Order: sequence, then structure tokens, then C-alpha cells
Amino acid sequence: MSSDPLVVFTPSGKRGHFPVGTPILTAARQLGVDLDSVCGGRGICSKCQITPSYGEFAKHGVTVKEGALSEWNAVEQRYDDKRGLAKGRRLGCQAKVQGDIVIDVPPESQVHKQVVRKAAAARAITMDPATRLIWVQVAEPDMHEPTGDLERLITALDKSHEIKGLTADLHVLRRLQPALRKGNWEVTVAVHQGHADEVPSLLEVWPGYFEGPLYGIAVDLGSTTIAAHLCSLTDGTVLASSGAMNPQIRFGEDLMSRVSYVMMNPGGDTEMTSAVRVALNGLFSEIATEAGIDPGHVVETVFVCNPVMHHLLLGIDPVELGQAPFALATSRSMSLDARELDLTALHPSAKTYLLPCIAGHVGADAAAVALSEAPQTSDDLALIVDVGTNAEILLGNKERVLACSSPTGPAFEGAQISSGQRAAPGAIERIEINPETKEPRFRVIGSDIWSDEEGFDAAVAVTGITGICGSGIIEAVAEMRMAGLLDPSGLIGSAEQTGTARMLAEGRTHSYMIHDASADGGPVITVTQGDIRAIQLAKSALYAGARLLMDEMGVDKVDRVVLAGAFGAHISPKHAMVLGMIPDAPLDKVTSAGNAAGTGARIALLNRASRSEIEKTVTQITKVETAIEPRFQEHFVAANAIPHATDLFPELSKIAPLPDVSFNTGGGDGGAAGGGRRRRRRG
Amino acid sequence: MSSDPLVVFTPSGKRGHFPVGTPILTAARQLGVDLDSVCGGRGICSKCQITPSYGEFAKHGVTVKEGALSEWNAVEQRYDDKRGLAKGRRLGCQAKVQGDIVIDVPPESQVHKQVVRKAAAARAITMDPATRLIWVQVAEPDMHEPTGDLERLITALDKSHEIKGLTADLHVLRRLQPALRKGNWEVTVAVHQGHADEVPSLLEVWPGYFEGPLYGIAVDLGSTTIAAHLCSLTDGTVLASSGAMNPQIRFGEDLMSRVSYVMMNPGGDTEMTSAVRVALNGLFSEIATEAGIDPGHVVETVFVCNPVMHHLLLGIDPVELGQAPFALATSRSMSLDARELDLTALHPSAKTYLLPCIAGHVGADAAAVALSEAPQTSDDLALIVDVGTNAEILLGNKERVLACSSPTGPAFEGAQISSGQRAAPGAIERIEINPETKEPRFRVIGSDIWSDEEGFDAAVAVTGITGICGSGIIEAVAEMRMAGLLDPSGLIGSAEQTGTARMLAEGRTHSYMIHDASADGGPVITVTQGDIRAIQLAKSALYAGARLLMDEMGVDKVDRVVLAGAFGAHISPKHAMVLGMIPDAPLDKVTSAGNAAGTGARIALLNRASRSEIEKTVTQITKVETAIEPRFQEHFVAANAIPHATDLFPELSKIAPLPDVSFNTGGGDGGAAGGGRRRRRRG
Repeated sequence: MSSDPLVVFTPSGKRGHFPVGTPILTAARQLGVDLDSVCGGRGICSKCQITPSYGEFAKHGVTVKEGALSEWNAVEQRYDDKRGLAKGRRLGCQAKVQGDIVIDVPPESQVHKQVVRKAAAARAITMDPATRLIWVQVAEPDMHEPTGDLERLITALDKSHEIKGLTADLHVLRRLQPALRKGNWEVTVAVHQGHADEVPSLLEVWPGYFEGPLYGIAVDLGSTTIAAHLCSLTDGTVLASSGAMNPQIRFGEDLMSRVSYVMMNPGGDTEMTSAVRVALNGLFSEIATEAGIDPGHVVETVFVCNPVMHHLLLGIDPVELGQAPFALATSRSMSLDARELDLTALHPSAKTYLLPCIAGHVGADAAAVALSEAPQTSDDLALIVDVGTNAEILLGNKERVLACSSPTGPAFEGAQISSGQRAAPGAIERIEINPETKEPRFRVIGSDIWSDEEGFDAAVAVTGITGICGSGIIEAVAEMRMAGLLDPSGLIGSAEQTGTARMLAEGRTHSYMIHDASADGGPVITVTQGDIRAIQLAKSALYAGARLLMDEMGVDKVDRVVLAGAFGAHISPKHAMVLGMIPDAPLDKVTSAGNAAGTGARIALLNRASRSEIEKTVTQITKVETAIEPRFQEHFVAANAIPHATDLFPELSKIAPLPDVSFNTGGGDGGAAGGGRRRRRRG
Repeated sequence: MSSDPLVVFTPSGKRGHFPVGTPILTAARQLGVDLDSVCGGRGICSKCQITPSYGEFAKHGVTVKEGALSEWNAVEQRYDDKRGLAKGRRLGCQAKVQGDIVIDVPPESQVHKQVVRKAAAARAITMDPATRLIWVQVAEPDMHEPTGDLERLITALDKSHEIKGLTADLHVLRRLQPALRKGNWEVTVAVHQGHADEVPSLLEVWPGYFEGPLYGIAVDLGSTTIAAHLCSLTDGTVLASSGAMNPQIRFGEDLMSRVSYVMMNPGGDTEMTSAVRVALNGLFSEIATEAGIDPGHVVETVFVCNPVMHHLLLGIDPVELGQAPFALATSRSMSLDARELDLTALHPSAKTYLLPCIAGHVGADAAAVALSEAPQTSDDLALIVDVGTNAEILLGNKERVLACSSPTGPAFEGAQISSGQRAAPGAIERIEINPETKEPRFRVIGSDIWSDEEGFDAAVAVTGITGICGSGIIEAVAEMRMAGLLDPSGLIGSAEQTGTARMLAEGRTHSYMIHDASADGGPVITVTQGDIRAIQLAKSALYAGARLLMDEMGVDKVDRVVLAGAFGAHISPKHAMVLGMIPDAPLDKVTSAGNAAGTGARIALLNRASRSEIEKTVTQITKVETAIEPRFQEHFVAANAIPHATDLFPELSKIAPLPDVSFNTGGGDGGAAGGGRRRRRRG
């Protein structure tokens, strides 16, 4: 046994004997303990802070005496004077082993910190971003041994951090010489390496010590909305999240109408590519301003999107995605320079990563959901539904995962709904209808007060009551069904049939008035027969997709359902089930994952190993093509009823028995909504 | 011993036994015989043509009988009908082994053909360009096994040509889907791989079979002139060569004045970068037009240039190159996309390769000279002088190679000379002065007739006699010295001292009139005292650089001298030695290599292995920095005399005894030209 002092690290439990005088940072590195250091042990960056523990540690079989570490030194004093060191903390690069010692590495000193995610999260994110900051000393030029400044930087990085074969683009090469001289041959560099086998590249160079942080933006580029999350690449914090409408909407609301636009208008793809890139730059500038950071410090972006958006973002004509066999130009992940996508609102050498697509209709957004929700690691059979203009559906467990997409249309996002609007202050997001009185009560975004509670009028005085958002319309339709205002076929009853004056006649159909703000100059908010039909089409597509995967898996029910999507977190599981959006399941087994695609993008942004992981996972997912599957059509028609024409909902009936009404008098718009008309629309 | 038939290939001598029915192309591939095939053996490209030989071959120990190859088949017939097959030729992919056979592979069917170089060439160029065309069949998309079109192309290329890890930029990705469909899943691709360990990239895709050829441009980017050579990447032919003035001249004639311009004018580097890139695009368009080719088929460029031009081309501020320790931003070779240099007159995905620099004053042009003239493989000690505004000098043999650069200034290119002009029709390029009569006779570019021969006036009627080019001024000064019109110190004699009325008094100095065209409205062409001083400065710098290398090598003489440079081929060795430009050597050991830097660029363009080779060679070259070497100054001063103040020229005196004259009367501009004033100028 070694007579050298024993060093025990917590929480890792790693231990080893080291000679007296060994810096704690050196001991940590030799043992593979996760202790950060940007400056390479020069007492500049303070990333290697540790807490020594003293006394008797029976668990580790060691007694730590006073003097087990070297004295507090001048470098630590200087740092403490300038920036302050918390009590009990030492700098790992300065404190040296003198005797047996127990060292705690606090979370903030770990390179691979974990980012805390919300309750329902399937996994934590371990920080390991593709771009990192390194402080380095570079040898000065020698006329007698002439080498370039870049070559001496490469040598230094290889020596200090074992970075091999670094490349540098012209942008940073231009800045290298002034930075080296201004920093007196000490610089901080940003080095990017997206995959372990990728050649590392120099993104930026700062004179002297640059603390950072650097930032990345995770983008969920949807057909209707673009959601962006600005994250610190040091600790994973989300500094700001922001959204914008996808300007391509003016070329077509859903994906197939955009593909049609290209077919009809040569060059239309270029127009749409340009429009979305302009919008992205605007969004990036906005989010940086909101977070109060320099957009030039944003060095990475990660995109998830469906295949059509994927091609249009890349500037590839999506026409092949509009017809069988729905061939992607490329399905693998892409690592690009952001400037190749004209994303100029970022650092000029910023990088972009696009997750792989799964198939011609199942895109990088579905891959991102798989990355976030990880059905491939689930013990029970999980159905994951990412609700959007185009729904991504995953069904699986650790044995097998299936995926498809389904063209729900934009109704769930409040589009194509008469009083619909996007989720913004003033929009009705929750609604209840009293089954006796048929009177509604509701809540609008921006206030927690219900409309029949005191203070409501004051609470909405500023925003007004402007419309119904996606989650609101789902609740409204489900509540109408539960209150007996809507029959299983989706017909709205008349005032006479339902006994309430809130039912307004509109030609041969009826609508249900939720709120009349016309006295204040606001809108009359109603749910019309057309709205019901739009929701029926959307929910039928969603349900049919899920059923198709269940058929393929050979099951009649699933163990749990995860609702995801930009507004997935806001959907009430009970109402979704009343509507028949999702198969029957115990209510406590229906959970919300929030924007799982966005979370997947964030994981890929913050943890580069996850990129290789999802690239491998997608190859193992079985793709099911809804567009050519005859059973999809059957499932779609059967799912038109609310909740369903044939499938039983035993779990639902335990909690929400539905009244057996019928408003079909032989005239009007009876029966199922035209499934065929919608069959090929995707979005 | 195998009972299978024996197949012998000539000229390689490779041999092996193959089963009856084996296509000759397959046999060649298995034996590693260099037999071309673009279409992968489908009888489309005809690159695999071979000539079977019949009869008794004692040398190979084989008798070839009729019927040793399969019958001429329909594919060959179709090709012969359409395009014609030379008599005796077969397609290697169609002709199959039936018995023992001897197969000759003609040069044009070899992938690695050799390009014939001019007489003095140190080495042949073996064709192995970085970009090649490959015809490939790609699997059609399958909805049930969804993969991208790119991924199926990658699979096909890996299978047919073992190309691993192909990448594709967005430009070509955009074109992939239409090309695959138009070509009915058969396409020709251009694949680029600059170094063996580089990731191959897809440059372009054409539907069906595209014969090519593709082109490359080798560029020698000099301080004063830009020379470009357009080459076929199939057979190495130079289709056109063209030159242009470097527009940066307006910012400063030599390199140091350009660096000064940047120091005095912030942003001046950007101006100069932009100017040279615009000029390059213009030159590329011009040369493509001249050769009658589509500039979009130019997929590669190779650049050689001195370090300041290197940095200005890349857009890097060259200010560090203007002061000790002359640090390069980067010294290694560079592989770039041409569009990063705004070289838009080419294929949009065209690649650019820059040779490595040797040191802060010894650039990629010197590396190119080393690649072309290969002193590192020479048995005898060779001095290679690349004459330009900045001279690159190499001295060495297979034991050791030294390199330096020397700031000669633009005088050798006809600049800063009173009657100087660039080498163009009308310029005096050759001159002789009768030592008795002191009368000159001369020749101008564009005519082989001497000025005292019949027909001269008619020959120059169109161009006129407009000035003196670089090689002309060298001859003029040397002839003046041989004719006793110029003394060793560089003083021009008066009419009285020399006895000829051609000596014109100009203030306190004299000039020698070569030709008076003023009667025809043309110039009076003279050599002035100022011209002599400019030439003395230039030649002293050149000689001093060579001497410095000889000191470092520990030698007093060299075995041979190679004159290189854009006009190196035009310099008369005898006159160069009279002038004392180069050390004394037997006249038959002084040769011209033409534009060796340009040839080096062409080698790197046509043979990618040469890139790795020169990258290794430059690390083994010893760099000598003239700017900080005190002995350079001493050598410079001593070399001011014509031919030299102290060094003996025994070989020269055998062929050209120089008159012992002195025109120094104590007044006027006597003695050496001011070496100190010029010491720091480079260009």
C-alpha cells in the first residue's frame, strides 16, 4: 500500500494516493473526477472550486487532520479579494495535498453538471455542449523556427487539452493575430466539436481570459409556430423563450398546401426558404434582446422540425415529400455552419445541428420527441402524441418503438376555428359548462380568476376577452359533449333541443355562445358547427394514427399516454379523452410532457453525446406510413364520432359518463365530416 | 498451379490466373492494374479500352490463341457505331477471359496518366486530381425502408468505389433529387478528396452519364502579375494560360508598401483583398472564355503566392508580416471552398488549395518552386532563383535544402525603369551593343527580326517600339557593361568618355539611347543612370540572398543555377551573370525553368499526393531570414558593383571579359547605390 496521502472525492467516491504537493485538480484529473477548469490550473477561472472536509470519515476509512491541504495562497487570496470565494471553498488548482483528505466537488464545479428538468421529465440533461471555452497560453513566434500563429495555438491546445487536428475558418483566422498580441499570448478560445469523431474547429478567440458564457438556441420549427429557447452553454439555464408565427403560413396553412404552392409556383420553395430564415433571424435578435445578451455570443443552434420544414429550411425543394414514396433528400442529421442557412443574427461562425429525420413524413421533430421522452427505454407501453399542425406519434417500449405522423391540420392551434386565436393574453384557455344550466364559466390567459368569480372583470380589463386558444377549443367541445349540447356525431343542438338560449341558429346549423363582448367593442365568442367539424377532422387524424401504430404493435390498449406539443402541457387529459383524441386510458396515466420536441432540441444543444444517441435510435424505430395505409382511412372514419363510433372508452366512462343525445333530424349537416377531403393534408 | 487462364497486363507486367468469363476490367482491378473506368463496367464511358495481343510471347512465357477473349459484343458494337473504337481495341469491361491472354493498357486508359512536361522539367506529373467523376446507380426510395436519397447515393458509392463517409453541401443537396429522377436513378457525381485522410465531399451531380471533363485552374498570384493556367482534370492538358496585373499595385508597388498602406489606412487590407478577388474572378472568366469551356465546370483552383499575397487573398491583415518576427497567421496548407474567397466565377462548390508557406518571408510560391524543381532530390548542389518583385531563393541537394526570400523590387519586371514596361508586343526583349561602334541592335516581342535586319520596320509597324521589358533591361545593362559604356560601379559614361553620341547628358548623369521613335510619335527609349541604380538594387538583393544561403551551407560555389519566375525563361544566363545577378557558374550549368511556381501549382492541381509531399518537404527546409541577418547587408553592398566588388567570376571571364573602365570623375552620383534605403523593402 502506498505511503502517499489518500485523496477521496465526493460525491463520486473516486479515491487514490498522491504524493505530497499534488494539486487537487491534478489528482482529480488523474482519477477522472469531473472537476471543471477553463484556465488549465492557473487560478484565473475559479471553475475548479472544491470544499475540503475535515474530521473522521468512517465511511471512507479516513481521518482528515488540519493541515491536510496546503495553506491558503496568494492566488486564492487575490481571487477572493476580487470576486469572493464562498466560505470553506478552495481553488482545486492551488490547494495541494499534504495529508489524507476528503474533497467535495460541488455541482457548479462539475463540467458535466445536470440540468434540472420539470417534474414529468424522462431524463436529466448532462451538460456536455459541443462548444466549450478554453484558456490557453501560446508560444511566441520565433523567426528562426518560423511557424504560423495558428499552428502554435494548435500545438498548445493539443498539449493542454489533447485537442487534435483543430481547424479554423477564415473568420476566426482573421482575428487570431490581434487577439494573441492583445492578450500577450494568452487567449480564450471557443472550440466546437459536435460529435466525438468530428474534427474540432476554432469558433472564436478572445484576448486573455474570457469568462463567457456562450449561448445556444434550441429551435422547434413548426408549420404554424416557431419556438426558440436561448440557453447558457455553461449551465444549461434557459434565459429566454420566445415564439413567432411561421411566415410560410401565407403560402399555405398546412404542409401539403405549401408543397402544392411550390408545384404551382416555380421558385416558390426559394421564397418560403427566405421567409422562414428572415423570421428566424428576427426571432433570434428578439430573444437575445429579451435576455439582455450579445447575439454574437450565440455560437450554436439546434433545429427540430418536420420533413417539409426541414427541406424548406435547408433550401431544398420539398416536392418529393408531397407524393409517394415521400423520399427525403437526406435523412441523416446535419452539422452546418449557421451562415449556410443565412442565420446572420448569431456569431458569424455559429454552428447548426439538425436532428435526423425518421422518414418522409416523420421528421426531426419526432426524433426530438424520442430523445426527450425516450420510449425506447420505457418498461410499459407508452403512446406519445406530439400535437401540432402535423402530429408526431410514437408508440413503444424498450422492446420496440413505432412512429408515424398524422395530418391533424392547424385546428388544435386555434387556426381554422371561427373564434380561434393563438395562445396569448386574452384567449380563453379553460372552460366548464354546467350540465344543468348549460352556462359556461372560463378563464383567460393572463389571469387565474374564473369568469364567474369576483375580480374577473378587473383582471381582463386590459387584455379583453379576444378568442379561444387551442386548449380552450378542446375543452369547449368536450364540455359541450358532456353537457349534452353536442351529440356523438358532432351535431350541435338547437336552443329548443337543448333548452338554452345560448344556442344560436346559423342557417341550418347552430352555434354555442360562450361570451358576448360586443357591448365593449369586443367579439362574440362562439363555437360553431364548422368549428366542431374542424376539431373532429383533427382529432380523428390523431386517433387514427395512434390506432394504426397499436394495430402494428398488435395491442388494443396502451399503458400510458404522453401529450406533448407546444401546447401539450395545456391540454386537459380528461377533455382530450372525451373528445376521443387519444385512446382510452386511466386518467392518472395520461400526462403532459410540454414541448417535448423543444426539449429534445435543448438536450441535443446541451449534450453532444445525445446527438449520436438519437442518430442511432432513429435507425431502430419502425416507421409506419399513414398516407398509404388503407386502415388509416377506416380508423379515421370511425374516429369521427365523439369520442368514437365503435371503440369503447371504459376508463373514460368511469369518470365522465356522456349523455346519450342525438340532434340529427334528417336535415342539416348530419353524419361524419368528410374524411376523404382531408386525407392528404399534412401540416 | 491454377488451371485458370493466365492474364498478363503490359506495360505493368502484372499477371494472374482468372476463371473463364472474368471481364478484363475485373482482372485488372484485382491485380491493381491502372485501368480507368468511370461507369463501373457498364460499357458507357469507354475509359477502360484495352488492346489484346495474340501470338507467342516468350518474355511472358505465354501463347495467346485466337478466341482468348470473348466475342465482340453488342455493347461494344453500339459504342463503336456511336463514337468509334480504334482498330484492335476492346472495352475492358465487356471482353472476357477465355484463354491465356496478353493485354496492353494504352496510356489514355490509365487513370494515373503522366503529363509530359517541357524539356528542363525535373519530374513528370502523374494524373491523380482531387476531384473525379464517377457514374453510379442509386437504389430507388422505398416507403417501407425510408432513407434519404443522399444516404442511398452514399451507400452506392461505398459499394462501387469504397468511398466512405461522403459529405454533401447544401448546394449539391438541392440538386440531388431532380438529377436522380431525371437520370432514372443513374447519375454521374464529382467527388472531391484533397488528401487521402480528408473526408470526401460531393461537388456536383449530373443526371445519367456525364463525360466531363472537369477543369482546374493553377494560379501564381504574384505581387505584380497574376498568372493562371486552365487545365483539364482528366488528362492534365493546359487549355489556356492567361495573366493579369495585380490590381493591388495601386496600393503599393512592392509588398512592404502594401503592408504600410494597411498600417496607415485602417481597412486597407479589406480593400486590397476585395481588389485581388475581383481581378481573379475576371481572369477566371476570361480564361474560360478563351478556352471555350463552361466556367461552371471549373471545380478546383490551386494558389501559390508569397506570404503577404497569401494573407491578402485570405482576407487576413498582413501587418505582422511587415515587422519582426514576421509571424504568419497560419503557415500550413489550406483547403477551402472557393466561395469563401468570393471566387464566384467557378462552380459554386469549387474547392481551393493553397500550398503551405515556408516562413514569414518565404511563401507558398517558394514551396511551389520546391515542388516543381525538387532540389531536395538533387544530387548536385542547385541554386534555384525565382525572379520576381520578391525573389524566392532555394539552395540545396538531397542532403539539405535552404530557402530565403529577397526584396528585389519590381525593376526586373520592367517597373521603376524609365522606359520599362511589362512583357507585351512592342517591348524590347533582346539587345546587343557592338563594343566597337557602341551601336545597339534589338528585337521586340512579337517579331523574330532584329532591328538591323531587313523587314524589321514592317514587322513592328503595328505594335511600334514601346519600351523595354524585364529581360530586355537585364540585357541592356549587361551589354552596356560589356561594351564599356558602364563602369563596374554602375556609372554611365558621357559621350566624351565613351566616344558615342548615343550617350545623352541628363543633369549631372548620362543615359544611353537605344531607340528614338519620336519622329513616329513614339517614345525615346533610353537607359538612364536611375535605371542602372534600380537594377543594381534589385540584382544586389538577389545575389546577396543567394550568398547568404551559400554561407549557411558553407560553400563558395554551386554546381548549377536554375533561373525561374514568370519571365525566368526569358533571361539570358550570360547577361544575368555579367550583371552579377547570380553567382559565377559554367554557362551550360545555368538553365531556365520557366514559371516554376506556376508549374508547382499545376502539379498540386493535378496530383493530390504532391500536396502531402510538399507539406512534408517544407517542414524539412531550413529557413534563412534575410531581413535580420547582418551579413545580408554586407553581401548586398558588395554585390552592388557590376558584376561584383570582391567575388571573382572565373567562369564568366572565360566567355565575357569585361572592359576595365571607370567614369567616376569625383562628382555626380558615384559609388554604390544606397543599399540602406532599400533594405526593408520587399515586393
